[in-house]
Amino acid sequence: MYYAVIFTSTRTEVEAGYTEMAIKMVELAKAQPGYIGMESARSEIGITVSYWESLEAIKNWKANMEHLEAQEKGRTTWYKNYKVRIAKVEREYEF
Amino acid sequence: MYYAVIFTSTRTEVEAGYTEMAIKMVELAKAQPGYIGMESARSEIGITVSYWESLEAIKNWKANMEHLEAQEKGRTTWYKNYKVRIAKVEREYEF
Repeated sequence: MYYAVIFTSTRTEVEAGYTEMAIKMVELAKAQPGYIGMESARSEIGITVSYWESLEAIKNWKANMEHLEAQEKGRTTWYKNYKVRIAKVEREYEF
Repeated sequence: MYYAVIFTSTRTEVEAGYTEMAIKMVELAKAQPGYIGMESARSEIGITVSYWESLEAIKNWKANMEHLEAQEKGRTTWYKNYKVRIAKVEREYEF
């Protein structure tokens, strides 16, 4: 049993600093306890799904100081809007 | 409380029929009982997250005849690989 954080977003036109922040946040997330993995795609909207061992791990990631700064900058600069859903993965299958 | 189906995929080179199928599946999903919404993005990988009122609704969607045909054609033609995760949304917030 593990958790998924589904982050969907719409970007502003502002590119400055965005890619650097995104790369840094991936590195930072990977270093967090309880991190499992992350997948991203962007077309009209962006979807990033990160996977975590527990709600506690997600809470700690959300409260990470550099991540908090990125969240704040995200709201003022890079994102028109975003939505975060925290979900418990109950089953999975693949091809 | 509702559910998310996280569908991540890598495409083959085959374009023929893909867009038509994708559009048709969105229309078909929308017409299913218990459907709430859907979001998609594609870069190197594709991520589609659909939202459903219950596991029963997800089960019925998975077993829909035209959807089954699309799944089969997906495996033989359009997708190198895919993964489906069914997750219960436990909390959410937005900006």
